[in-house]
Amino acid sequence: MTDQPAPMSIQAIESYHAHVYFDGPEARQRAEVLRDRIAQRFPVQMGRWRDQPVGPHPTAMYQVAFEATLFPSLVPWLMLNRQGLTIVVHPNTDRPKDDHLVHALWLGAVLPLDGTGLEASLSALGRAQDEIMPNTTPALTDI
Amino acid sequence: MTDQPAPMSIQAIESYHAHVYFDGPEARQRAEVLRDRIAQRFPVQMGRWRDQPVGPHPTAMYQVAFEATLFPSLVPWLMLNRQGLTIVVHPNTDRPKDDHLVHALWLGAVLPLDGTGLEASLSALGRAQDEIMPNTTPALTDI
Repeated sequence: MTDQPAPMSIQAIESYHAHVYFDGPEARQRAEVLRDRIAQRFPVQMGRWRDQPVGPHPTAMYQVAFEATLFPSLVPWLMLNRQGLTIVVHPNTDRPKDDHLVHALWLGAVLPLDGTGLEASLSALGRAQDEIMPNTTPALTDI
Repeated sequence: MTDQPAPMSIQAIESYHAHVYFDGPEARQRAEVLRDRIAQRFPVQMGRWRDQPVGPHPTAMYQVAFEATLFPSLVPWLMLNRQGLTIVVHPNTDRPKDDHLVHALWLGAVLPLDGTGLEASLSALGRAQDEIMPNTTPALTDI
């Protein structure tokens, strides 16, 4: 076992993205309910509706970007309340391709993601991660 | 949307189980590395090796039971360091069947679980959840 690479530290994770997938009008309605409920409860950066596949994602979705500090409340809440939808939660480290294809957790199903346009390393390109800019105004504190 | 049931509170989650799956000797070796690394870092209740499918689980696995307080460190650590293995993390609420079949998060793939022997509600049967009894002695604090 001496050839095993050292573990990665969770300190490498600066933030997370959840992507809430929906496929068809009925699932989109459930995605609306979920979106409203997330916004009522969590200070996240809620992305716009993407009704066509974009980037690595195989179906329509919206993105929910959040700081690592929300992981212990938002992720369990999604586990309990995902409205039957498929959701991926991927960390944001220096390695976007691995974050999507290797490091992600999935609720409901694992969908195939297209890693073609994802970078192996941001720092190697002189790039940094996007800052999270929360745009929700949560009023419910009883999570 | 008025017919939507109210969200479940994450307060319903008393603890979590991770199940680390492996299928074949090569994967079992990776599962050994992962098991040692978890035990070195996290105060969990490490279950014994299950080299045959048991209960709802479709392949060999071992269970890692842990308090909800470990969720924000252990789950991201598993996301980054799962050795290519498939892992389920399910909450333990009053509803074991839902916890396995609906509420779980998956790393690597979603495996089919057999819900036949899982109870809809523990409290309806006068039962409580098993307490977590950590049996590891972690020495590494740099997670």
